[in-house]
Formats: sequence, structure tokens, C-alpha cells
Amino acid sequence: MTIFASDNVTAACPEVIQAINNANNGNVDSYGDDQWTNNLERKFSELFEKKVKVFTAITGTAANSLALSAITPNYGNIYCHKISHINVDECGAPEFFTGGAKLITIDGFNGKFSAEDLRKNIRGEGVVHNTQPSTVSITQSCETGVVYKIDEIEKITEIAKKNNMKVHMDGARFSNAVVSLKKTPAEITWKSGIDVLTFGGTKNGCLDAEAIIFFKSEDIKNFKYLQKRSGQLLSKMRFLSAQLDAYISNNLWYKNAKNSNKMAKILSTKLSRLNSIEITYPTESNEVFVKIPKSIQGHLTKKGYYAVPDETFDGSVRFVSAWNTTEKDIDKLVKTIREKL
Amino acid sequence: MTIFASDNVTAACPEVIQAINNANNGNVDSYGDDQWTNNLERKFSELFEKKVKVFTAITGTAANSLALSAITPNYGNIYCHKISHINVDECGAPEFFTGGAKLITIDGFNGKFSAEDLRKNIRGEGVVHNTQPSTVSITQSCETGVVYKIDEIEKITEIAKKNNMKVHMDGARFSNAVVSLKKTPAEITWKSGIDVLTFGGTKNGCLDAEAIIFFKSEDIKNFKYLQKRSGQLLSKMRFLSAQLDAYISNNLWYKNAKNSNKMAKILSTKLSRLNSIEITYPTESNEVFVKIPKSIQGHLTKKGYYAVPDETFDGSVRFVSAWNTTEKDIDKLVKTIREKL
Amino acid sequence: MTIFASDNVTAACPEVIQAINNANNGNVDSYGDDQWTNNLERKFSELFEKKVKVFTAITGTAANSLALSAITPNYGNIYCHKISHINVDECGAPEFFTGGAKLITIDGFNGKFSAEDLRKNIRGEGVVHNTQPSTVSITQSCETGVVYKIDEIEKITEIAKKNNMKVHMDGARFSNAVVSLKKTPAEITWKSGIDVLTFGGTKNGCLDAEAIIFFKSEDIKNFKYLQKRSGQLLSKMRFLSAQLDAYISNNLWYKNAKNSNKMAKILSTKLSRLNSIEITYPTESNEVFVKIPKSIQGHLTKKGYYAVPDETFDGSVRFVSAWNTTEKDIDKLVKTIREKL
Amino acid sequence: MTIFASDNVTAACPEVIQAINNANNGNVDSYGDDQWTNNLERKFSELFEKKVKVFTAITGTAANSLALSAITPNYGNIYCHKISHINVDECGAPEFFTGGAKLITIDGFNGKFSAEDLRKNIRGEGVVHNTQPSTVSITQSCETGVVYKIDEIEKITEIAKKNNMKVHMDGARFSNAVVSLKKTPAEITWKSGIDVLTFGGTKNGCLDAEAIIFFKSEDIKNFKYLQKRSGQLLSKMRFLSAQLDAYISNNLWYKNAKNSNKMAKILSTKLSRLNSIEITYPTESNEVFVKIPKSIQGHLTKKGYYAVPDETFDGSVRFVSAWNTTEKDIDKLVKTIREKL
Repeated sequence: MTIFASDNVTAACPEVIQAINNANNGNVDSYGDDQWTNNLERKFSELFEKKVKVFTAITGTAANSLALSAITPNYGNIYCHKISHINVDECGAPEFFTGGAKLITIDGFNGKFSAEDLRKNIRGEGVVHNTQPSTVSITQSCETGVVYKIDEIEKITEIAKKNNMKVHMDGARFSNAVVSLKKTPAEITWKSGIDVLTFGGTKNGCLDAEAIIFFKSEDIKNFKYLQKRSGQLLSKMRFLSAQLDAYISNNLWYKNAKNSNKMAKILSTKLSRLNSIEITYPTESNEVFVKIPKSIQGHLTKKGYYAVPDETFDGSVRFVSAWNTTEKDIDKLVKTIREKL
Repeated sequence: MTIFASDNVTAACPEVIQAINNANNGNVDSYGDDQWTNNLERKFSELFEKKVKVFTAITGTAANSLALSAITPNYGNIYCHKISHINVDECGAPEFFTGGAKLITIDGFNGKFSAEDLRKNIRGEGVVHNTQPSTVSITQSCETGVVYKIDEIEKITEIAKKNNMKVHMDGARFSNAVVSLKKTPAEITWKSGIDVLTFGGTKNGCLDAEAIIFFKSEDIKNFKYLQKRSGQLLSKMRFLSAQLDAYISNNLWYKNAKNSNKMAKILSTKLSRLNSIEITYPTESNEVFVKIPKSIQGHLTKKGYYAVPDETFDGSVRFVSAWNTTEKDIDKLVKTIREKL
Repeated sequence: MTIFASDNVTAACPEVIQAINNANNGNVDSYGDDQWTNNLERKFSELFEKKVKVFTAITGTAANSLALSAITPNYGNIYCHKISHINVDECGAPEFFTGGAKLITIDGFNGKFSAEDLRKNIRGEGVVHNTQPSTVSITQSCETGVVYKIDEIEKITEIAKKNNMKVHMDGARFSNAVVSLKKTPAEITWKSGIDVLTFGGTKNGCLDAEAIIFFKSEDIKNFKYLQKRSGQLLSKMRFLSAQLDAYISNNLWYKNAKNSNKMAKILSTKLSRLNSIEITYPTESNEVFVKIPKSIQGHLTKKGYYAVPDETFDGSVRFVSAWNTTEKDIDKLVKTIREKL
Repeated sequence: MTIFASDNVTAACPEVIQAINNANNGNVDSYGDDQWTNNLERKFSELFEKKVKVFTAITGTAANSLALSAITPNYGNIYCHKISHINVDECGAPEFFTGGAKLITIDGFNGKFSAEDLRKNIRGEGVVHNTQPSTVSITQSCETGVVYKIDEIEKITEIAKKNNMKVHMDGARFSNAVVSLKKTPAEITWKSGIDVLTFGGTKNGCLDAEAIIFFKSEDIKNFKYLQKRSGQLLSKMRFLSAQLDAYISNNLWYKNAKNSNKMAKILSTKLSRLNSIEITYPTESNEVFVKIPKSIQGHLTKKGYYAVPDETFDGSVRFVSAWNTTEKDIDKLVKTIREKL
């Protein structure tokens, strides 16, 4: 019972697995010359109310690293939060894909950093001895489940632009942020100054599908070669594109995230009422972080939950809801905790 | 109608797509801690009659490049055929993954090179100015559809060992070679001196699944980090492992390749009987290369076939059969050609 | 008048320039097959009371980065101080040479970090998502001019060994540390657990000469190829080796550093007596950091000194003494400051 | 007696060593903010009759690789001769500096390739699977001592431009080519379509000094960071710049090369008159390649000459003259050969 351990323990949602099955029909041109891939650009452009360019990757690590490599020279700085996925959980993929760019880590409240936090960390522009300010990367929703507000993003991208930097958004849980903010995808991204987004599908109902969305065509350059030479260009591309096609059709991405967020909220509320349990960060998307007594951790583990405190999150245990989480799942978890209170 | 353009234009075979559907069931631990992934090592070890270590990748390009990066230092030479996939069709991925190793290309008859061809190209060992002999890579079956015989492999790996080099086999069409040679997977690989194999699934009935098989545990070192930081470690790994699980169960890989090879043979025989058509290489697996008059090329194109002569193959047009090719497909192709003879 | 701006503004000392002239005599085998290069290993082994292996580089940046690349995999962590030269002043050379290793920066008092600071930052061993603890790098004397004590080094290397990490010492100002500590080179390095040292010559009397000293032969592996392919193997190697030969003959390195340290001490003492001047860090080698009023900064600049406050050093102005600094130079500087007090 | 083994066995010429001594005077700003470095751009611009940008490197390997990295993406092809220094003698430095670009080797007569040889090797533009045509690199004078004629260069650069490629000239022996061709540096380079030149000093009288000359400012981009992060930016830059300053003052580069070429011609003529000796390539600069009987090779080796046949040069022995070669040196060599005829 790995439920709540992460949103990537889930199966694919029915619409996506159906899309895979539908795509598995007859011979189709390879390497993206198929109807599903050909539709992506139009469909994502509609979703983002702007002509965008779309590339795909199989993993979030690849999507982030490819996106960063498109906008960061090998002597560049990528400013990111100290606990960001690109810094902590990708085994150096950003460094690998960029040819050795430097991640400058910023500490910031609740997993987010502010424009001011960023500003204080920028230095060395034009100094030959220093790696050069090049890129800012923020995670939306971020690793603590907290969400950047529109004005926070705008202030960050403003500082970035002033320093001639590009801004990347790691949107592994972008859908959850959109639901949380009650804003459009456009408002949260290019209208707030984001240059490139990795729009996650895997954690929110896909099997393995991530989109890299460029909002400015000049940032793309020869991106297709970077994608190919990193082994991310699928021959049977239809099976990746069909997932994304289903994912952004009929608001599926939104509906899935809506359920995740709602369940996280319910879980958070119920946990907050328990003695000895402390909610670590505001529950703004689909992640609930709690400090719980060791005895309960042990009990949860015994009952099959993943309840290991994580130093990165100040010793909290993390519960992640997903597109398929139900209130029954929550009640069961809460009940299990109660057993040891 | 992209049939015959490549074996990657095909859908997944029924058993594999069924495996995907079966795996899409409930929550499962991510990053490979699932039943399908856990079974791979045992199942591949049975298939290869030896305890092997198995890693996965989504594309052949990634599988080859990861395998090469495990056994080649950044100042190393990788000896390969001039028309090998790693040299011609991976946009420099081997160079990227190895941190800049050099592909030393060898010309050789019919797409294969001999031990003697290899021997003549080895030089510079211990000389600081020269990139160092490190790795040999052969493709089996090779890019022309021709297959290395056991004794040819043995002679090549003997030269390699004498020069302290590791040997990689690009087995994107390994199954077709096994069928062709009427030898066991073990005989064609580690028993002949191969150190690491990339065993292709995608072209032979999978959606997107490649296995990297290490025959010697000492070559693995910290491979898992290389895999992760190249963005090839899937969170929902079950969907990749389930494909491979189905693929090597019940001899599926063999049955699929058997049909491909048989259909290629039939096609080759029929084409060889036509005037003005010349078979370029012996048809030993599932690829048929032919020189055909321009007028026929044009006609085929008009009728929806891919019939573009390829310089890499001496100006030949390539027809590739697959697990799903039927005699009817062949008859239709031959008939279309006849219309213009 | 760039005096005090750094120790790299100085000319070469007489013995070194004489060695260059002496070496400039007739034809000599290239790439290190010359008498000066051949002597280095023996002479450095004597100096370090241990059989060592010596390689050379032209710049400190190259020496550090090459050394790190020998002991750090591309998915590795290099733990270093936040203000260390490798992190701040080498434009990402360590990342470039290692193929993308990650510098994990540690904050620590007065430019040094403690074993405990280090310990708290180590995490992720064996976790595939995390870059792996691999290397510790300390600067001796460090960027603030403060010197690691023997027991501090021992504690750091002990933590490193416990975590299977190698330890590098950036000794751009190693000579100054030796003088300061009144310990032997052996005691400060391999006897305290250091695995590889970059021993600086350039800042202490050479034109451009750095030595990379391996204390354990197993760390060398194929280092010569790394050196060559980074463009650091000189054809006319004699001109580099002759510098180092002179440098470690007749205690020249020690005598030069002794003067530097002595002058720094005098300068520090004199400055400490002045009102409105605050010494930022203890003056333990040849660097004096001071906080001085803006008006004096301006005055110094007008008079030709480099007196720009540096954020990295908490807004201090840095004065560096060298092998050629005299008391007269100091008096002149102090007098200039006094003019504005 | 390593004379004739290479031109890098020589000492520095008097003017250059004098320049080093002159520069060794007092404190000077570091990292290139000195009078010698500041003069380079003006002086080289005069020499090339065009406003050029100049960077420096310590070795030819670094100079070539840095230049190539400025104009070649990591997925790019660098077309070069099979026996070119960048392919054979730099241990993969071009691959390292470019992040994995691919050297496409071209065979061609006498060490040169023609525009037609180049044209036939260009393919794959725009095809995502292929590394992309990006750069052409020719060596002038080339590795066989043969020199590209102006019209040969023009035809090559014309093909390059047609294919949107940049052209690099490896001028480790550029001076010898200028002397040989009786053309101006401008005519041989930018007037013939060369974009970037590495102008060698080391082999022609310097200690260790190479210039990288950009003829188009748009190719420079952020080159200074590439230089720094490869460890090629010297702190005591004056000692490198002073060499180049002396080298291009008073036609020193030309006078030195004139002697080298003259001596090679004399040697070649004398050897050609001997029985059993065959001149392998036309002697157009300062290298003489000869096929000589094994017995004579042995005799020469016994007498202290370097007389090892080199496969790269079709089994020839190479004699290289230099700025300091005298007719007496030649007579002695010839006499030694005669002893065994």
C-alpha cells in the first residue's frame, strides 16, 4: 500500500490509458510525424492563449534539464531553491545536460524564494572569474506544496529580466498550482514573465509524459538536436503524444488536479485537528507535510504507509494525494494515525 | 501507409499492450520497486543462462549511449562501423553521454567489420596525445540487415580483449539476429565475448522499451546514477518493465522476430525475381535493401510507400518488415512495383 | 601601483626567472621528457617525505579542476566552502572538468568550515536521486587568509573517509600555510589525511606554475590523459618544470612565503592601531582584510591602490603581501591611509 | 640530441626570452590588464590589416579546442583531415571543449583535403538524427608540411559558407605557411574566408604562447568565460602576452619561419639526392618526411636522432627544422645518414 507516498505511485487515469490503447492501431510514421504529435502545438497554444512551441520528454528530470539546457550556457548560473527538485532530486541532470552550469541555491520561506531573496544572490555579471547569471528556475507548485502567487512570480521574473536572465518553471505539479490559484495557465506563466515551462503529466494521470512549453520562439534555437542527443526523442512518439493529447483534452489535467487538491485539503484539515500532529506548510496544492511522533511513524510503516521523516522538509512526513485519491483513502489513513495517538 | 518504412512504425503487439493495461492497476511503488521490474533480472538471467544485471531505457539511443558511457572513459575510443546507428543516427548521443569519447569509424563489407578491419584501426595505446582504445561496438543484426556470425564475433572480441577493450553489442534488432543465426542469446553474446548488450524491444513489438544487459557485474559500477542523471529512470517504471516482462515471456521476442525475418525473406525473394531490381545486401534478418529505378521510387512514393534512396546504404531503398507484416502486405508492395516495371 | 591588490601582481622572483633563462638552452625533448620534469617527482617526494606523483598545470584553476576531476565522478558532490576559490572564482571550471559534478557549498566561520559543518551537509549516499558524496575540498591557507590547524584538517578528513570521500587541498597559498603553522608539508597534507594537493607556485614567486601532488598512486588512474585533453600538457615543458624545480630547491617556496606572511603581520598590526579600521579576519598568512571607511577607500583608489570592498568577504578591502613586499611598501600604504583618517 | 624531432624541442629565440625578462619587472595588474596584453589587439589588427579580436592560450591543443568550442555546438560536426592534429594528437580535447562535437574525418591527398572532398562528406543538415554540419578545420601548414594554396582555401570556405559552416584554421605552423606562400597573413585567412585562426608561437620561437584570432566579432560571444573555465586565463598574463608581443614585433615570426623553411628545403634537397631515401611529401614548409631503410633508422637512433617511422605519415620518418636550425645541423644529419647508405 504505497498510497500517499507520492503522486507517481498511481496508475494512469482511464482517459489516458484509453488514449494509449487507441493510439495502438496500425502503422504510423515515427519520430513525431503522427496525428497526436502534430496536434500538440495547436492544443497547447489554445490552452495557453498564445502560439507556443511544444516538445516532449519521458521524465520530469529530462524535461527540466532539457529546458534548462536550452536557455543556460555551460558557464551560467541557475538560481533555484535549495530544496528544489532540480537541485536535490535529479542526480545532477541539470549539470549534465547544460555541460556544467552551476545551480545557485537560495533559501526561502516555505519552499519558495522571493524576488528579494533572488536579488541578493545575483552577482558577478561580466566578471570573467564568475559563473554568469543566466537562468532562474521556480517550481510551481513547489516542493512543499506551497504555490507561488501571481505577484510573487511577476516580481521574480522582473528581477530576472533586469539581469538579462531567462525564467524556467518546473511544473511537475503545474496543474495543481493552476487549480489552487484559480488563474489561467497563461496568467501563471508567460503573462507573469515565464519563458519556458515543463508541464508535468506523469504525476497527474499519465503513464510517462511531460511537455516542455516554450513561450518565446527565440529560446528554442536548435532544441530538437538537444532532445535527440539526450535520448528523449521516441521513435514511437504517438504513445507519448497520445497521453498528452488526452491529458489536455476535455480539461482532464484540471479535473485530475482538482481532485488531488481537494483531497489534500481534506486530509490536511483532518490531520490538523489531531493532537501531536503539526502541519508543516500551508496545504495549497496536493501535498501535506506533517510532523508526527515517532511512534506513529512506526505504526504507519507497519500498516504499509510511507512515513519516513525527510530532512529536506524539516523532518516532516509527506502525504501526497493524486487524481485517484478518495475520501475513503483519507479516512483510512487518519484512522490508522488515530490508533496510536 | 508507412508500412515497410521501418519497424518502428508499427503498433505494439497484443501481448505488450495487454501488459501495459494489466500494469495499470492500483498504486505501485515508483522508480522500479515494483513486481515487473523486480522480475526482470531473474527472467533475463534465465534467458541468457547467466546471472545478468538489467537496466532499462526508453529509447535505443539512450540505451546505447548509457551502455557505452559505463565502459568508456571520456578520453576513450569507441570503434564502430562507419554506418553504425551510434555513429550516424543518434545525433552525437554517445559523445554526449560519455563526456566526449571519440567514435573511430571502420569501413567494412556489407555493414559489418571484421576482426582484421578492427585490428588495423587500433593505435595509440599509452600515448598521451592519443585518445585511448577502450570500446568496440558492433550492431547485431547490423544496419544493412546482415548478421555477424558467431566466429566473426569471437574474433572481434578476441582482438578487443587483447587490447584491453570492452565490447558492446547494439541489439536494437538483436531478436532478429537470434532468429537468423539459430543460436541462443547466450551464444551470440557473452559466450562470444560480449560485455554489454542493448536488447531492443521497441522495434519488435514494444511501445518504448530497451534493456541494457551487463554480463559482468564489474562493468556496472555506479550505473544507476548515470541512468538517473540522464533522465532515463522512470517514476512509473512499471509501464516500461511490464513491456519487457511480456516481451521476454513465452518467447514473444522470438516469435515476433521470426515473423519479421520470414516476411523479409519472402519479400527479398520476390523482389530479386523482378527485372531492374537489385538486392543490395544479403537478406539475413528483417531488412531488405534494393536498388530500384527512379521511376519506381516515384511511383511507390505516390502510392504511400517510403522509397527514398539512402546514401548511407549506397543509394538503396530500404524495406523493413516487422512483427505484424503479412504476406498480403508484401504482395501489395510487389504489385505496386510491378505496375511500373 | 597595483601592489597589495593580490600576490599575482608580482613579478617572478630572481631564482625562478634565472631558472627560466637557464632552461632556455639548446634543444630538449618535449612534453616532459626533460631533466627538470624528470626531477620533479624525486624532489617533491623528498619535500613531502613520501613517494608522491607530480603533475603540472599552468593555472591554479586548471590545477584544482584537474585534481578534482581525478577523484570525483560526474554525479559526485564536492563539498567546499561557500567562498572557496573553486566555487566563486573559477567560472565553473570544476564543473567543466568533472563533467558536471556539484559543488555543495558550506558556510563556516572565518572562511573555514569545520568537520561538523561538513558532516551536517552530507546526505544521500546510495540514493539514486541524489548526487553522491565524493570529494571534500579545503583551501589552505583559505580565502580569508586564515589557516586550517592540523587537528581541524584531521577531523575533516576523518569525516570524509567515514563517508568514502577523497579530500583535495587547494594550496594556491600552501606555502603561506606551512610557514604559518610551523609544521612540515607532510604533516599538513597526507599525514592529516589529504589525498591530493594543488601546490601553488604562481602567487609565491613563479611566473605560471602549479603542481598537482597525488599522495596515493591509486587516485592517479589515467590522469595524464585528462591533463592532455584539457590543454595543460606543455610541449616545451621544461619552462614550467624549471620554475617548480627552482621553487622547491633551497627552500625558496618557504623563504618567499615567510616574507609574505611577515609583511602581512606587520601590515595587520599597523592597521589595527588605526582608528576606524577594523581587521576582519585573523591575519594568519599573507592576506589582510579590513573594513575601512568609504572616504579612505576613495583616497586609496586615487593614490593607485586597489581598495574595493568585496561582498564575498563581508564588505572588506583586501591587502595581499607577497615575496617582494617590503616594510617600506607597508609604511607607504599606512601613510596613505592616515592621510584621510 | 633531439634536434629535428620536432620544432617544439627548441629553446625560445633571443627576442622572446628577452621579452620575458623585460616583463619581469615590478608589479603589474593581473589577468590581462597589462600593457603587453592591451597592445595585442592593436598589433595583431595591424598584422592582419583588419580589426581582429585576440585571445591567448598556453598550448596549441587548448587554442584549437577553445576556438572550435566558440563556433561549434555540442551536436555539431567538425570536418577535418584524418591526420589532423585536432583528430590525432590532442587526446580528444576538441570533443571535451565542445561538449561532445563530432570530428568527421576526411581523407585527402598529401595531408590536405579539397573542397570536393569536403563537399562529399557533408550531409544530414536539418535531420534530427544526425549531428549537424557546423565547422570546417584546416591546418596551415598542414601536418605533412604541405601548404594550402589560396584558391584551395577559398574553394573550401566557399563550400563551408554554402552550408552555413564556420571555418577554423589550425595555424600551429601558420608562420611557415605565410613564408611558403609569399602571401600576406590577411590573404591566407579572412580574405580567403577563414573565420578564426589559432596562430602558433610555441613552435616558432616562443616558450609557450598561442594566439586565437577572431576575424568576426560575432563569433566571439562570451568567449572569455570559455577561456577562463578551461583554466587558460593566466593571472600573470604579461608573461604570455610579452612573448606574443615580441613575436609579432619586427617581423620576428616571419624571420624565424623563414629560416625554418629554408633549412627544410636544403635538407629536403640533400636527402633527395641520396639513394634509398624517398621524400614522401613535397617540402613546402619546415617539415621533411622521408622513407628510409630500417638500417638507417637504427643508425640514426643510435646517433641520437629521432627516426621512428610513423603510420600516420605512411611509415615516414619526420625531420622538422626550426628557427634555430643551421646548415651545419643539416650537414651533420646528412653525414650520419650517409654513413649507412
